[in-house]
Amino acid sequence: MASRFVNENLIGKPGSRAAIATPALVIDLDAFERNIATMAEHCRRNGLSLRPHAKTHKSAAIAKAQLAAGAIGQCCAKLGEAEAMGEGGIESIVITSPVVTAQGIARLMALNAKISDLIVAVDNPENARALDAAARAAGKPLKVLADLDPGLHRTGAQPGEAVLALGEFAHKAQGLTLRGLQCYAGHVMHIEAFADRREQSLVAMKLLGETRDAFRARGLPTDIVSGGGTGSFDIDPEAKVLTELQGGSYVFMDKQYNDVHGGNGATMPFATSLFVQMSVVSNNTKGLATTDAGFKAFSTDAEPPVLAAGAPEGAKYFFFGDEQGGIALPGGGSLPLGAQLTAVTPHCDPTVNLYDCYHVVRGDTLIDIWPIEARGKSA
Amino acid sequence: MASRFVNENLIGKPGSRAAIATPALVIDLDAFERNIATMAEHCRRNGLSLRPHAKTHKSAAIAKAQLAAGAIGQCCAKLGEAEAMGEGGIESIVITSPVVTAQGIARLMALNAKISDLIVAVDNPENARALDAAARAAGKPLKVLADLDPGLHRTGAQPGEAVLALGEFAHKAQGLTLRGLQCYAGHVMHIEAFADRREQSLVAMKLLGETRDAFRARGLPTDIVSGGGTGSFDIDPEAKVLTELQGGSYVFMDKQYNDVHGGNGATMPFATSLFVQMSVVSNNTKGLATTDAGFKAFSTDAEPPVLAAGAPEGAKYFFFGDEQGGIALPGGGSLPLGAQLTAVTPHCDPTVNLYDCYHVVRGDTLIDIWPIEARGKSA
Repeated sequence: MASRFVNENLIGKPGSRAAIATPALVIDLDAFERNIATMAEHCRRNGLSLRPHAKTHKSAAIAKAQLAAGAIGQCCAKLGEAEAMGEGGIESIVITSPVVTAQGIARLMALNAKISDLIVAVDNPENARALDAAARAAGKPLKVLADLDPGLHRTGAQPGEAVLALGEFAHKAQGLTLRGLQCYAGHVMHIEAFADRREQSLVAMKLLGETRDAFRARGLPTDIVSGGGTGSFDIDPEAKVLTELQGGSYVFMDKQYNDVHGGNGATMPFATSLFVQMSVVSNNTKGLATTDAGFKAFSTDAEPPVLAAGAPEGAKYFFFGDEQGGIALPGGGSLPLGAQLTAVTPHCDPTVNLYDCYHVVRGDTLIDIWPIEARGKSA
Repeated sequence: MASRFVNENLIGKPGSRAAIATPALVIDLDAFERNIATMAEHCRRNGLSLRPHAKTHKSAAIAKAQLAAGAIGQCCAKLGEAEAMGEGGIESIVITSPVVTAQGIARLMALNAKISDLIVAVDNPENARALDAAARAAGKPLKVLADLDPGLHRTGAQPGEAVLALGEFAHKAQGLTLRGLQCYAGHVMHIEAFADRREQSLVAMKLLGETRDAFRARGLPTDIVSGGGTGSFDIDPEAKVLTELQGGSYVFMDKQYNDVHGGNGATMPFATSLFVQMSVVSNNTKGLATTDAGFKAFSTDAEPPVLAAGAPEGAKYFFFGDEQGGIALPGGGSLPLGAQLTAVTPHCDPTVNLYDCYHVVRGDTLIDIWPIEARGKSA
């Protein structure tokens, strides 16, 4: 494991944040701990279980911090991520995407043999039959959730007879244990205006509630109804459909979620805890500094990073190729070589997926390094 | 090392390409070998040394394939990349970006002690003084190139007195060995029309030639004049300024470089050898299939991936979030669960940086897995 750290000589040794090799992914531990406590308290108050999504953080250390605050387990987007979380000691995992290939199903059975509470989303009868056959051959039933398409058409069975037939097959299949439903409305999470986001979230929840009721009418289990996310965390409780919330980004926040308005017209109750720290490496042109963080240091699927600590008023980051970022400095200003800057990530999940570890700081002190075990585990 | 492989059980065992865990980065070995031979022959014919850029491939296996075909060493964009290449047995490395932080300079001295021919670009007298002091303290001179800004203002000393003063300092400094100049015109490489690209490349080469002549007039060494790239490989030779070419992307090609026209009005003489292989994981909606490759499987700084093998005529890939891709299928078509598709990467360098290994295929046979040792080594 040690060889995967960017900065091996700092492991376990407290040090100065300024000495971190950059670009580096930095967690502000104060904000991170507050976010975990805030979401845990929110779920407790609303009688909702919390099953945070490991696709955001990909780290067993963070999964354990969430469990310690009361989370019931983790979600994983991919099988490889679940293998890494299982290896890291997490026993209750929902894999939220279908596992369909022959080699994937073989690995899924191996993971099911290793951890106590593996649950996988299924959205297709053909896939359900393949999972049933493999689980029967392996001699341990596989827990499944019927995945419902909220209208996004990314994954999920269609509402009505399709999802009911899938549920009935899974319930009867000797190799499968149907635990309930999953529905994730990924298309509503980043709608910035609260009223619009609420309206569209509740449309998905209504569909899910009707499906849950139809499952119950046919005697199908609905012990677990899993879904929701950081964007709908304060909307889903009023629908009273979910038993567990799948939020991921709340631990870190990012530019995208910082632009989303909360229910009271104010910002969300989560603070940015994740930053990229970078260094000025060239400064030969007035009004411009070049840093060591470019396309390989930030995801580029959203708007550019937003400068935080260390930057002069009015300074703006722009991408300057694969390896570098530019800092446009107002009034022809300059920054010294080696100056440290931090930026809020555009989109936390794919940015985390670029790094091997988190540098964990409290104020200006580096206090720990956490590996990102599931980084790159998209298969 | 083995734990970093996506697919450990295939290491060294030939197998079917269809059994690769997806999403996976796949090298078509036939095209890859032709690209390496074509560029090596081009440089030999033009009396130019070839120093390919490891920022593209980040793999010691590929560096060694390039060396075996006649390359004189490697370029690395970052110190961490150079450390990984040094660890992988590469002895001649130019680090093409400045190394300025105290901890970076300490690591640079450690690497200089380990490999025989480390050379680093420097663009600032303050940085040159720090490198000189560190190399004197370490007891082994550090080889440097004076980096010239071609007008992009990303890195490089300004033409004229600034770069000459930098060269004179480096030449006199006891801890430094000035080897010559570097100039990389990153802004011209992707200009699609050959005539425009040629014109702008030659502007940068003229500036570099004048600087080289001024260096010679002052008795400064110009044994190495390093620069150029895949986009200017067939333009730079006519300028007769470079001693070595820094091309990187030519080994793989990508959508961006496939859109660049060659000097004869035709395409470039390099074939696409790098693909992302993905699997259909959901297909419940007519005219649509969902694959397991999204923002974490492709870089998103350029246009979307272009479907290659396995896709029906007219099918188009679109990003469908962090974890998935959508395949829009004409005429309401469908694809079976588990169907394998491949896509040309939008931009090879940051896509490679998402994966831990290459799956190397000849035709449909998986014949090897190569680790990407410098993946994520941006610090």
